[in-house]
Amino acid sequence: MAQTITEKIFSQHLGREVFAGEIIRCDIDMVIGNDITTPISIKAFEDSGAESLANPDGFSIVLDHFIPAKDIASANQARISRDFAKKHTLKNFFDEKDMGIEHALLPEKGLISPGDVIIGADSHTCTHGALGAFSTGMGSTDLAFAMITGGNWFKVPESIKVVLSGKPEKYTTGKDIILEIIRLIGVDGALYKTLEFTGSTIEHLNMDDRFSMCNMAIEAGAKSGIVAYDDVTKEFLADKNLAREPRIHYSDEDANYTQILEINVAELEPVIAYPFLPSNGHSITQAVSDKIKIDQAFIGSCTNGRLGDLKTAAEILEGKKVHEDVRLIVTPGTQKILKEAYKLGYMDIIIDAGGVVSNPTCGACLGGYMGILGDGERAVSTTNRNFVGRMGSRSSEVYLANSAVAAISAITGYITDPR
Amino acid sequence: MAQTITEKIFSQHLGREVFAGEIIRCDIDMVIGNDITTPISIKAFEDSGAESLANPDGFSIVLDHFIPAKDIASANQARISRDFAKKHTLKNFFDEKDMGIEHALLPEKGLISPGDVIIGADSHTCTHGALGAFSTGMGSTDLAFAMITGGNWFKVPESIKVVLSGKPEKYTTGKDIILEIIRLIGVDGALYKTLEFTGSTIEHLNMDDRFSMCNMAIEAGAKSGIVAYDDVTKEFLADKNLAREPRIHYSDEDANYTQILEINVAELEPVIAYPFLPSNGHSITQAVSDKIKIDQAFIGSCTNGRLGDLKTAAEILEGKKVHEDVRLIVTPGTQKILKEAYKLGYMDIIIDAGGVVSNPTCGACLGGYMGILGDGERAVSTTNRNFVGRMGSRSSEVYLANSAVAAISAITGYITDPR
Repeated sequence: MAQTITEKIFSQHLGREVFAGEIIRCDIDMVIGNDITTPISIKAFEDSGAESLANPDGFSIVLDHFIPAKDIASANQARISRDFAKKHTLKNFFDEKDMGIEHALLPEKGLISPGDVIIGADSHTCTHGALGAFSTGMGSTDLAFAMITGGNWFKVPESIKVVLSGKPEKYTTGKDIILEIIRLIGVDGALYKTLEFTGSTIEHLNMDDRFSMCNMAIEAGAKSGIVAYDDVTKEFLADKNLAREPRIHYSDEDANYTQILEINVAELEPVIAYPFLPSNGHSITQAVSDKIKIDQAFIGSCTNGRLGDLKTAAEILEGKKVHEDVRLIVTPGTQKILKEAYKLGYMDIIIDAGGVVSNPTCGACLGGYMGILGDGERAVSTTNRNFVGRMGSRSSEVYLANSAVAAISAITGYITDPR
Repeated sequence: MAQTITEKIFSQHLGREVFAGEIIRCDIDMVIGNDITTPISIKAFEDSGAESLANPDGFSIVLDHFIPAKDIASANQARISRDFAKKHTLKNFFDEKDMGIEHALLPEKGLISPGDVIIGADSHTCTHGALGAFSTGMGSTDLAFAMITGGNWFKVPESIKVVLSGKPEKYTTGKDIILEIIRLIGVDGALYKTLEFTGSTIEHLNMDDRFSMCNMAIEAGAKSGIVAYDDVTKEFLADKNLAREPRIHYSDEDANYTQILEINVAELEPVIAYPFLPSNGHSITQAVSDKIKIDQAFIGSCTNGRLGDLKTAAEILEGKKVHEDVRLIVTPGTQKILKEAYKLGYMDIIIDAGGVVSNPTCGACLGGYMGILGDGERAVSTTNRNFVGRMGSRSSEVYLANSAVAAISAITGYITDPR
């Protein structure tokens, strides 16, 4: 019987055909925790009496949210993960050494392969679907269950087929596509479903775009987002020493979808999600006419902290100055991205324009540190959530946008069309 | 009558000869505030009914302690300085644009000249004495008085003549000399006095060394530290567009000193100040035999976050790896230093060794953010204070050292002799 790519991934793992709606127990290829969520998983793991991890090489801890420690509590919290990693001689423990944001770092390290089943105690674990894997966020105790048993229970998700057509214009990115999707279907439009991204647009989207799209699948309530393996995926993986051989699947033509959503990307302009929901999307044309003055522009996060984002920012900022009323903060996703961006001259351009370049970290995105908003302040941000108080004060506002919009707005002081 | 350099600086400002002990009112060339102290000064300024600054170009605000905002309170606090700087069209306002630690940034910007009288609402304002200026820390309301009137009251300080002799060995730096002085005279050994650094060693000390020495004068209770203008000063100032012409003074041979302190620097080995006072100095030989295991090595701050510190660190770290139990955090003093260190390859070496490079900030030094210590953790740090809880938890410990000691200790995991 015809299957979606997601059904095929689970079928291969179980050795039998499974379909959406079925509740199954499935082995997991990679379990991911971070500095905030892992200590709770460790406690549940230890309370269970377990002595060893079911699959040590299939467990990663990435300290990325509040590290280097922003305060004493963060330092104490990080130590729990450090001690556990040391006790279990964890191979995939990423601390301040070679640090990065988990959803940028793990694909870079070759720890995510097409066809994988992945869970992480972080909402944006769905990012990894961009490599043709099933990847979803779970709670810390769900993580503990996987640490102990090597697997977990899943309801095989139904899928929404997103058919993207046309070649995007220069400043229409994966971020704009996913913001448009969330605008159309709402923050609960894909509850417990997979957003499967297909169509003629896909070949024009690089991995940065695809990671952005899958990253924000959760903002439509989706269990996962996924893009099938193709030449772009192949090229991304080519220089990596992969932990697992790719298992490549494609949805059958007549697979079952609960919904088909068609978007003409060729006509899509940059999308800005106004406060206080990612679904509150408006066209850049509308945003420009609304004259939205900003205090801060932030370029970074697991959504848009990749090399392409920094390249875009540098191209726009070259020879320009950040507006006197605006702070520009740039947070690269990983140390590799950071070093590469310095080598390519992007960081000098950003700093000379008046921006601050930080170490890799989740930092400001979740109101952690490194650019928190004060009372009544307004930011344009390449991050993924614009809930009340997400990046700081409850009276602050976050407008979600792509990196080109954030960079040009930093120069003008208002949300501005990069085209 | 014979005078010290400090007496001469005040005499020139007053247009008459003044001597130690005299209480005088003196115009100030540069008044310095930061993100923590300036809001209090601004309140006092505004409460006074003053409408304009007495000397707008002689007032600098540098946001460096908790910026980019580490939390909502920091963001709100920074806004007070931003609004004031905008209202008064302050020329010397350093926000996240071209940011840096005040005591590294202002000399770099040409805002400190030999012969200046400088006050700042920050203990380590004494740093600027390295350029042959009188520079001291004051409280925020003292700052407000200077903002309103252009001057302030001073008791012309008595001086201690520190006579440094001999050429230091490679890994004996300005930091070691000042730690040795504080060890000898104690944290109140120079109360309200000027530490005047002289002797044959001076010509061997670069500006980084001199800034380090003057920076920590306050840790002996000194009002100021000072090094007279020479070829090294001249070279440092050569490429700067100075705000004021240098006014060069030298102490008279028979000037009056309360104490003469002689140190044979040629025989001085690196000094480590154990917890919990900067005066608790021990030789590196002693520290090595004490086998002091560390959790973190920090290289940065207004004491040791300059290009020479990063060069030293890179030379030691090249091709090596930071010990698995140690975090290495490197915080450059300014954006210029940061960019230069990337260009020279230092930062790649540090990152490849496993270090984290942050944006310029006071950050971890004062337990602000960017590497706070958790319970029971121990750090070797190039900073200036090792009081209880200075860098984090009250049960953490800080060992003060030079950058070479910090770098080599990061590799071995124990406080180690770089020689």
